[in-house]
Amino acid sequence: MKLLKIVVILFLSVVYTSNAQKINVADYGIEPGKDVTLEVNQLIESLKGKKDVTLFFPKGQYEFYPENAIEMYRAVTNHDNSLKRLAIPIFNFENFTLDGNGSTFMFHGKICPITVKGSTNTVLKNFTIDWEHSFVNEMKVIENNVEENSFVAEINSGKFDFRVENNQILFQHYDWEDVIGQNIAFDPKTKAPIWQTRNYALNGKGKAKVVKLDNVKAKFTNITKVTPPVGTVFATYGPSPGGNRFAQAIHLDQSKDNFIENVTVFAAGGMGVIAERCENITLNKFIVTSRSDRNFATRADATHFLGCKGLIKVENCLLEHMMDDGINVHGAYIKVEKYLGEKTFLCEISHKQQWGLVFAEPGDKIMLTSRETVLPIYETTVTKAKILNEKRVLITVSDVPAKMPTGPLSFENITWNPDLIMRNNTIRDNRARAALITTKGNVLIENNFFSSQMHGILIEGDNKAWYESGGVRDITIINNTFDNIGYGSGEHYPLFAAPLFLPNQHIGAEKYHHNITFSNNKIKSYNGLLVHAFNVIGLKVEGNEVELSTKYPTGSKLPTVSLDYCENVSIQKNEFRNFSWPLKVEKSENSTSIVVKKNKGLSKK
Amino acid sequence: MKLLKIVVILFLSVVYTSNAQKINVADYGIEPGKDVTLEVNQLIESLKGKKDVTLFFPKGQYEFYPENAIEMYRAVTNHDNSLKRLAIPIFNFENFTLDGNGSTFMFHGKICPITVKGSTNTVLKNFTIDWEHSFVNEMKVIENNVEENSFVAEINSGKFDFRVENNQILFQHYDWEDVIGQNIAFDPKTKAPIWQTRNYALNGKGKAKVVKLDNVKAKFTNITKVTPPVGTVFATYGPSPGGNRFAQAIHLDQSKDNFIENVTVFAAGGMGVIAERCENITLNKFIVTSRSDRNFATRADATHFLGCKGLIKVENCLLEHMMDDGINVHGAYIKVEKYLGEKTFLCEISHKQQWGLVFAEPGDKIMLTSRETVLPIYETTVTKAKILNEKRVLITVSDVPAKMPTGPLSFENITWNPDLIMRNNTIRDNRARAALITTKGNVLIENNFFSSQMHGILIEGDNKAWYESGGVRDITIINNTFDNIGYGSGEHYPLFAAPLFLPNQHIGAEKYHHNITFSNNKIKSYNGLLVHAFNVIGLKVEGNEVELSTKYPTGSKLPTVSLDYCENVSIQKNEFRNFSWPLKVEKSENSTSIVVKKNKGLSKK
Repeated sequence: MKLLKIVVILFLSVVYTSNAQKINVADYGIEPGKDVTLEVNQLIESLKGKKDVTLFFPKGQYEFYPENAIEMYRAVTNHDNSLKRLAIPIFNFENFTLDGNGSTFMFHGKICPITVKGSTNTVLKNFTIDWEHSFVNEMKVIENNVEENSFVAEINSGKFDFRVENNQILFQHYDWEDVIGQNIAFDPKTKAPIWQTRNYALNGKGKAKVVKLDNVKAKFTNITKVTPPVGTVFATYGPSPGGNRFAQAIHLDQSKDNFIENVTVFAAGGMGVIAERCENITLNKFIVTSRSDRNFATRADATHFLGCKGLIKVENCLLEHMMDDGINVHGAYIKVEKYLGEKTFLCEISHKQQWGLVFAEPGDKIMLTSRETVLPIYETTVTKAKILNEKRVLITVSDVPAKMPTGPLSFENITWNPDLIMRNNTIRDNRARAALITTKGNVLIENNFFSSQMHGILIEGDNKAWYESGGVRDITIINNTFDNIGYGSGEHYPLFAAPLFLPNQHIGAEKYHHNITFSNNKIKSYNGLLVHAFNVIGLKVEGNEVELSTKYPTGSKLPTVSLDYCENVSIQKNEFRNFSWPLKVEKSENSTSIVVKKNKGLSKK
Repeated sequence: MKLLKIVVILFLSVVYTSNAQKINVADYGIEPGKDVTLEVNQLIESLKGKKDVTLFFPKGQYEFYPENAIEMYRAVTNHDNSLKRLAIPIFNFENFTLDGNGSTFMFHGKICPITVKGSTNTVLKNFTIDWEHSFVNEMKVIENNVEENSFVAEINSGKFDFRVENNQILFQHYDWEDVIGQNIAFDPKTKAPIWQTRNYALNGKGKAKVVKLDNVKAKFTNITKVTPPVGTVFATYGPSPGGNRFAQAIHLDQSKDNFIENVTVFAAGGMGVIAERCENITLNKFIVTSRSDRNFATRADATHFLGCKGLIKVENCLLEHMMDDGINVHGAYIKVEKYLGEKTFLCEISHKQQWGLVFAEPGDKIMLTSRETVLPIYETTVTKAKILNEKRVLITVSDVPAKMPTGPLSFENITWNPDLIMRNNTIRDNRARAALITTKGNVLIENNFFSSQMHGILIEGDNKAWYESGGVRDITIINNTFDNIGYGSGEHYPLFAAPLFLPNQHIGAEKYHHNITFSNNKIKSYNGLLVHAFNVIGLKVEGNEVELSTKYPTGSKLPTVSLDYCENVSIQKNEFRNFSWPLKVEKSENSTSIVVKKNKGLSKK
């Protein structure tokens, strides 16, 4: 039996080898130390139609410039759609492996490193993505004057030019200038957003004065509410939407079986990984961090997944110093503009940064949803989806309700909801949240370390701001460490589960989120906050250990556990240590079947 | 014999009828008085693959809105490339006729009326293209105060909103705002640009002050050099490039045998007709003019042709009140960035508004050209053209010079140079020139009426500003009327033939333009100017009658005939009547074989 097995393995191995092709890019004039964009584009194009190809880069630093790169109009969700230059376009391949062998791919200007579209079984491994000039501008406070509310800052360590015009600093980039735009102050001691960072928001309006002192330094007066301490490092990253998200590092688009392994992203003019309408994505040892001579990484989220299915597996990753969330997994609510009859709906993609999204294709199950309660109304199947333009699509379905519901309606795609496993990851020292999870798939979040500026894990969903669907069905968050979560303002929770309601939206008969388990996590907390839940049925918060941390000012006016319109909730066996103020449970009158018991250090009321 | 002929005709007619299909759009729910964009898009899509189709619109006014229109990223030469919504996309059809039967197609917002691409034998006839809200903003001076250099203007006849912010007027459009941007003052008496219009250029900088008086009127102080007279109407049309040319009326793209007949364009956010890489274009009774309640027509040229071949025939057209030239026929110089070896050149499209142009395809003859003398060096044939991005293309040719020329180089496409017949047209009362002609084809301009703000006919070509090729070979301009040409500044000529040289460009051994005949034209002239020629071999200016006009201030410091680096020139039998100042011929020392004789009213020197 054993022998037979070996023979079979050998046989398979032979078959595999005979089909596979390993291409050493050095054989095609692709060498470190020069612009290889044209050659890489041409080599990949020459491989069209081939299967089982490995593109192997001998270790070195390869330069990529936009001038000769191929170009396409690309809609990239959560980014700014535009004509984009592409360095490594992996389109319609089967079994394509990009193996950097430890190389650095160094980018210059407006160019998108890696785009995978229409491909199956793509492996991206063993390389670093970096930009000569990061998209995040750094301003380090080297002097300050509290009396006149001014400070002097060193601009991008003196490495890149800037100018000042009309009291506005303009950072010179490859072939454009950035204004300050979005910005956030970091604390050099923690390498994370500074405590009460909102006080230091750079605001160029009104009495603000900016003076260029020399080629390295500028003086800013009255540009912040509170004078920033010496050492503060500002990250500024331009206006959004419509400005600062034009060059993601890796875009996975309508592709199946995607593997990213041993890949580091030091910078990006957008997200580290953005995936849309993909089936099965594995990230292993994917790192987003700042380069040693810089303080910040990507302009936006480290990883982001919209409308995927199958399994998203994120393991052994380090995501830090980015300007937005660590991970976000969600779908999209699209607006029903008008029912045209004949089972056809004129629909509109709601959020500008989702325009161009492939919302649904024939065979997808979609859910007619109220835009008032954000609750499901009627499930049906897409038979035709005719894209009119980036914003609008005609969707024809197999069945419609006998009587069309009144009130504003949306569709949510039910088929494209992935399962998610997050294990052994570290997400820290970033602006915003560690993780946003709104998928109907089975989710396991285990053995991770989270320490972000806002909420730890946000289970939100909204149909009026970002239009990120949808209500969850099965989330398990166990054995993680939450370290001093929410240090940006002090008012955030390790777990915050609540759809975002805006005016004219209200609760309905059903609950929005279902079945969330938050157990056996270890929490270091300066504010004593644990869970905020609204509109949830089935919430288990058990066996968590919460210990006081004095890293930030302690205390909070908010309840440790907040329950609003919740049902079937168990808050049990949690232990709170060393807190010097009462930790409360607050529950609304319309919450039902709530069990709070056997907790240590938690007030009963 | 006669009988046989009839039988044959009948037979052909039957064959034709059996293939042809006339579609009445009313049968598809397309009716006047509502947004028909989606229905028209869908109807045209349903016709894909059909030949010999006539789309017939019963007479009426049909509305087109952008919301449901199909969308494509479109590079449109001499316009702003962008994602464009298309109302009537005629892509890859054979023998397609659009018959409006006298209808008006009324557009709203950012939407492109008609795009013909990859089609053969397309007929567009019997309709009017208009916009509810013109792209040209009108400001009519109703009061002025010379002492404080101010005026009060009525904005768009009070029909559309505007606001004032930071001393800047912002015109409200469908879903955007326009700043003043490019602008020109018109004289209500002539309905044409005002005499010395440059004095009235609106300049928002410095001491300018703008105040909104009410919903109709605003007051402007110190916004012009000279206070405009009451009655002056300003046309303002936004910034260019990168702003005001996003919605041409008709785009003919890579199509053969194009016919436009009985079509009127009252407005466009760009040109009336822009054609690129088309073979054979006939315009008959094509009208660009302002609607009766407005003063201005299109934001840019009435008609414009880049890189076409075959015959362009423009007859019986009226082109007036547009913000740029009446007609422009030219090619493009693209820059040789680098010779890569293996007969392959890395080339770059030089002008931003030509990006995305299909410069050449295999089989095209192209000319390697000096960028210093703009003279031809080496003719070869394209074997491969690989577009990298909007700007760059790899061009492989059949043969290269034994020794590659030094100095900056360009390519010019020799194959795509059309013949041109212009007959019985009126071009008048527009900003800029009546006609710009730079094609190597045979050109006949006969029996036209020209009265434009700048030169009458400009035969230019340049390889450093607009990159419009190329040197002409056979131009005949006979029996036309030139009426008070150049009234914008008084310094323009009925015929101005000279390549535009910029610093570092200089004459070479050969002449740039060849064989221009300008004969038997009737010229009404306040400035006595006739012809300016530079770098021309073979120029015949004979039998023209030039008569003094007192419509504008008379006289000029410029020579009536100016010859610089010209050869084989005949200035004969021209007659100048009623001029009270000496009309001179000025020729450079490097001009040779110049015959000036038998002219009446022209000084010998």
